[in-house]
Amino acid sequence: MDDQINNSETSYSSWDGILHKLVQKIVYEALVWSSLHGLVVGDKADQRSGEVPGVGLVHAPFALLPKSFPRTHWQQACELAPIFNELVDRVSLDGKFLQESLSRTKKVDTFTSRLLDIHSKMLEINKKEEIRLGLHRSDYMLDAQTKDLLQIELNTISSSFPGLSCLVGKLHKYLLDHYGNRLGLDSAQVPENTAVIQYAEALASAWKEFNDSRAVIMIVVQKDERNICDQVVAVVYFRAGYTPNDYPSESEWHARLLVEQSSAIKCPSISYHLAGTKKIQQELARANVLERQELYDFLDNSNVIDNAIERPDSYVLKPQREGGGNNIYGDDMKEVLLKWKRKGSDELSAYILMQRIFPAVSRSIMVRNGVVHQDNAISELGIYGAYLRNKEKVILNDHCGYLMRTKVSSSNEGGVAAGFAVLDSVYLT
Amino acid sequence: MDDQINNSETSYSSWDGILHKLVQKIVYEALVWSSLHGLVVGDKADQRSGEVPGVGLVHAPFALLPKSFPRTHWQQACELAPIFNELVDRVSLDGKFLQESLSRTKKVDTFTSRLLDIHSKMLEINKKEEIRLGLHRSDYMLDAQTKDLLQIELNTISSSFPGLSCLVGKLHKYLLDHYGNRLGLDSAQVPENTAVIQYAEALASAWKEFNDSRAVIMIVVQKDERNICDQVVAVVYFRAGYTPNDYPSESEWHARLLVEQSSAIKCPSISYHLAGTKKIQQELARANVLERQELYDFLDNSNVIDNAIERPDSYVLKPQREGGGNNIYGDDMKEVLLKWKRKGSDELSAYILMQRIFPAVSRSIMVRNGVVHQDNAISELGIYGAYLRNKEKVILNDHCGYLMRTKVSSSNEGGVAAGFAVLDSVYLT
Repeated sequence: MDDQINNSETSYSSWDGILHKLVQKIVYEALVWSSLHGLVVGDKADQRSGEVPGVGLVHAPFALLPKSFPRTHWQQACELAPIFNELVDRVSLDGKFLQESLSRTKKVDTFTSRLLDIHSKMLEINKKEEIRLGLHRSDYMLDAQTKDLLQIELNTISSSFPGLSCLVGKLHKYLLDHYGNRLGLDSAQVPENTAVIQYAEALASAWKEFNDSRAVIMIVVQKDERNICDQVVAVVYFRAGYTPNDYPSESEWHARLLVEQSSAIKCPSISYHLAGTKKIQQELARANVLERQELYDFLDNSNVIDNAIERPDSYVLKPQREGGGNNIYGDDMKEVLLKWKRKGSDELSAYILMQRIFPAVSRSIMVRNGVVHQDNAISELGIYGAYLRNKEKVILNDHCGYLMRTKVSSSNEGGVAAGFAVLDSVYLT
Repeated sequence: MDDQINNSETSYSSWDGILHKLVQKIVYEALVWSSLHGLVVGDKADQRSGEVPGVGLVHAPFALLPKSFPRTHWQQACELAPIFNELVDRVSLDGKFLQESLSRTKKVDTFTSRLLDIHSKMLEINKKEEIRLGLHRSDYMLDAQTKDLLQIELNTISSSFPGLSCLVGKLHKYLLDHYGNRLGLDSAQVPENTAVIQYAEALASAWKEFNDSRAVIMIVVQKDERNICDQVVAVVYFRAGYTPNDYPSESEWHARLLVEQSSAIKCPSISYHLAGTKKIQQELARANVLERQELYDFLDNSNVIDNAIERPDSYVLKPQREGGGNNIYGDDMKEVLLKWKRKGSDELSAYILMQRIFPAVSRSIMVRNGVVHQDNAISELGIYGAYLRNKEKVILNDHCGYLMRTKVSSSNEGGVAAGFAVLDSVYLT
């Protein structure tokens, strides 16, 4: 461990020797704890991982200690969850609004276009979803200058990490129970995270509303080669299906359509899925639900585009689709925008131009692949929300747990699975 | 998974298709369960494993379903644990007996010789261990022909797998709770395994007897580079120190001597350690505590050696030391014995000649590295025992949980860590 700390980019020479030793000890304990409590993921360096469960495992990347976060903003974020839940539900009922808002995106983004096709078919047959289940996650950052809570995005499909985020919270509580005195930290300031239990309970409640004791819950995952079984399905929970990669052939699109046509409760339905696209979020932002990151459409905002070409570091181009790793920043973005201005094609409608957030930066000790790394880092807080409705009766509408992700502030990309961020938890101040 | 099952040595063509699918499903669930519940070990194929915790992890090898075991023999084995605990304690007090019984081994086995040297020094200074802690494990097999419970050996140092064996029991209970109906198996027949909790409680009780709230419990592990700390040590728990590999230099032997001279409670003390050598167990066997595997000394039993040369498959040569992988069988054994007869050296005193057990064979589905393998297998039951004594007061003397190990019956070697066996649990019949 010693060498690894010394070899990391940041020099630890300034650290107090005792603190250095204490960090080593805490890292060691954290790694052992992770192995024993399932805080593990598939190691991408191991070929077999992802093919067979239980092999090629490595601890999930984590921050060694929880990240300070103001209690008032935390409470605000939690209180917003049921409001967003309700908003997604109402928007999902307005099929015309969804189709019209996404009409330009449809022309250039084949993926969104396929989703809209399914949505159209449902409108045609006047398909009604009486029982609606939403498992969302709304992501926020704190703006460095204004200290405002800014919404980054709202995920309405396959909201990730309810399981691992709970474990990281438990890890941090465990570490603070043992080392909190020496670090001047109190484990009681780390809020309980019950995301995984509450998500499971929401799925169970939906199953109950379906009211058929023989029916099953089907979880759609990547590389799922099982045929749609001959059992009655009460709930279809999508843990895949949000990127074009999940539809390598027509048969996946056919399956998605079949699910949508069925009487099963979909989590999400095609309408909930579309309500989570950035374009729709841009529309919702106009309702001033929350002061949020500015989203700009291309055709309406040529002055904003000029501004972005002039000050490329203040903006970011994000694809409509989900999943990290495809954002365009800085000079790359400038080039794309200039090209667009010259050619004027519709190509960019697959993207949303966003005002870039400059979040608060603080030191973090991050552990990945057993290697410790200390650096300046920024954090993104996700608040999970669960919504369940049967006709006019709202059965569940609540925030339920959280996800904190921390990444080196020099890294532009955001996803934990994509290898840029580490899992973290919250230390309320 | 399909290919892996078909590629294994045993053809599954005779299997009923539904059963085959069910096995696949159970294997998948078992592998996921293992990842989530810490039923993992370091993957020897991964270079980093063992260097840093939390990386290069793979599920521990396990039997898919618990192994049938007669309830009467199970109870007998549990009831024997406190008797063996007491026996080890009494033998440990007879320093002269230990030295004399091992005098011939001492000449040829450098490792045992070094242990005896430390023991001699303690006798010289008349060192008394008032608080004595034993965490033993007695291993048994069922003889195929007589159905008798035969003791294989008694471990008095670093008895392995109290943690993983509890997890495999939990895994099997989980699987039977979900698939027991279809398999005709009842999870209630798998006895609760609390080995890890009871071992931890025994260590805590010893610490309490030491009666110094500032004192710590020190766990000695392989590659431990920490200096003996400047804290008062209440209990030294050896999880290493039982093979020559754990003493690469004189400094490890010096540390062992230091520990033995200290006032700390040793688990085990040098006397307890020596009481666990096969030679001493051979002596104890003469007391007819239990019908057990026959152990033969070389010089006293030339007729037995002739018999072993004639029927090499009925015997096995085992080294005095602990740790699997060094036994000599069959023709190899015959050659060694013939050479010994010609040359008559003392060399073989490092070994014990044992009557070979022919244990009951049954089919097992074993999972290792994510690969399923069905084969004829034999099982070895270990019963953990905990013993704690302060002067005349016996504070703890009980059996505490179990370890079941299953291996392909064609494999001669026994250790799970050595890669021949899988972890299993007990299904009482």
